[in-house]
Amino acid sequence: MKQGDLLHSGKAKSVYRTDDPGVYIMKFRDDITAFDGEKKDTLCGKGVYNAEVSSFFFRYLEEHGIRTHYLESTEPGTMAVRALEMIPLEVIVRNIAAGSLVRKYPFREGEPLDPPVIIIDYKSDALHDPMLNDDLVFALHLATPEELDLIKATALAINEILREYLDARGITLVDFKLEFGRDNGDIVVGDEISMDSMRLWEKETGASLDKDVYRFSKGDVMETYAAAARRILSPSGGETA
Amino acid sequence: MKQGDLLHSGKAKSVYRTDDPGVYIMKFRDDITAFDGEKKDTLCGKGVYNAEVSSFFFRYLEEHGIRTHYLESTEPGTMAVRALEMIPLEVIVRNIAAGSLVRKYPFREGEPLDPPVIIIDYKSDALHDPMLNDDLVFALHLATPEELDLIKATALAINEILREYLDARGITLVDFKLEFGRDNGDIVVGDEISMDSMRLWEKETGASLDKDVYRFSKGDVMETYAAAARRILSPSGGETA
Ligand SMILES: Nc1ncnc2c1ncn2[C@@H]1O[C@H](COP(=O)(O)OP(=O)(O)O)[C@@H](O)[C@H]1O
Ligand SMILES: Nc1ncnc2c1ncn2[C@@H]1O[C@H](COP(=O)(O)OP(=O)(O)O)[C@@H](O)[C@H]1O
Ligand SMILES: [Mg+2]
Ligand SMILES: [Mg+2]
Repeated sequence: MKQGDLLHSGKAKSVYRTDDPGVYIMKFRDDITAFDGEKKDTLCGKGVYNAEVSSFFFRYLEEHGIRTHYLESTEPGTMAVRALEMIPLEVIVRNIAAGSLVRKYPFREGEPLDPPVIIIDYKSDALHDPMLNDDLVFALHLATPEELDLIKATALAINEILREYLDARGITLVDFKLEFGRDNGDIVVGDEISMDSMRLWEKETGASLDKDVYRFSKGDVMETYAAAARRILSPSGGETA
Repeated sequence: MKQGDLLHSGKAKSVYRTDDPGVYIMKFRDDITAFDGEKKDTLCGKGVYNAEVSSFFFRYLEEHGIRTHYLESTEPGTMAVRALEMIPLEVIVRNIAAGSLVRKYPFREGEPLDPPVIIIDYKSDALHDPMLNDDLVFALHLATPEELDLIKATALAINEILREYLDARGITLVDFKLEFGRDNGDIVVGDEISMDSMRLWEKETGASLDKDVYRFSKGDVMETYAAAARRILSPSGGETA
């Protein structure tokens, strides 16, 4: 597979065409942004960690019956994926109240959400990712009712799979964001599942193992990402970071 | 029925107890506010028009099988209502894109929304009325799934009734806000249905017949409210304002 033209350069990844029109190469860059793009940095090595963790989770989900865009890991920091018609939704699953949920609503930080709460934002930098509800998803023709049902059910299924996996490694899955796309009418998980898109708390200490370390300058971001990747990729029970 | 202690003084109305614990008197004040309380004025006579229109619509809805808190109109600017345990939701039904919908999402002003879009905000001045979705309504224990279903179905039924009524009087019902409460386990429409809580466009000219005239300083607010009330209270076909 040969890397071709740059198709899209986003805030943290670049997507390239290949000689196969159904396959893209996704390059995880070392760029990191937060607060709607207001905070920005380049952290050498970040892309490789996120690509490693994403590739691992996509393979793991495929083994558990979830359809993802993942095809193969070529070189460090990249991933070959199925070309999807992306649905501009950010599908956020929350198991514990944190972040914007606590800022916007009367939840206490750390409060368990049972059942989990799904929040769906409209993916638009220009409009600052406004939150949607089901009626708005349909009125904006972003997804059909059948697609939205499938997206929510898949997001909850992924939540159960990842939650159990991370729990066995001493990590609480607080919340995470998914993006979905269409592949010949099928709904497929796209984008990434990484320290940039998950909120992870070390069970023992409550310490952040994710982008919150960058957002709130809580410590060394690269050390955190390295430790998170090591834990996530470790065999079950390997809680020693 | 004797007016008793002041129970609650909100942004535009005051609620008083009466000698009957199941009955409140609602006084529509002349205060008007917009933009989350940033714009504020007192417009002599506004309360009377809003009370008149609200009382009329509640009676009209009751005649069409909708349960409301309305009991009787005592003196101008007031309304006797059933005391409800209010549900802190602002239930907004939108037939046409306007206002915050156009600011937040890629809708064009004036674009028809078919089917209508329901938006539900959490009624909290302190939190600036953040938008909810169904999962959040349940996680915050604001309503049960059965209650939320009933609230949405009632809001849509009211929309059909008011839309037809206003259409026959040369007015387009663009959107409106409802509040609901509990009365011995029943879900009942409370609060007001007035020029403050509806967005109304004169069919012929597109002119605003509602609080937008105040929000955006589009003309004489009291003349507009008087004209709107006259139209709304006129017999069908009486399109001459
Ligand atoms: N399988 C895929 N096919 C096509 N586009 C994808 C796929 N997976 C993810 N994308 C898109 O590629 C881009 C990834 O780059 P990113 O830096 O995350 O962009 P953004 O700043 O828009 O979030 C996103 O726009 C994402 O929606
Ligand atoms: N039937 C009712 N019983 C009790 N409270 C009610 C009833 N109808 C409306 N209310 C409440 O009375 C208040 C009306 O005053 P308002 O000026 O609109 O207040 P706000 O600034 O909170 O919107 C609102 O808080 C509303 O929820
Ligand atoms: Mg992205
Ligand atoms: Mg009010």
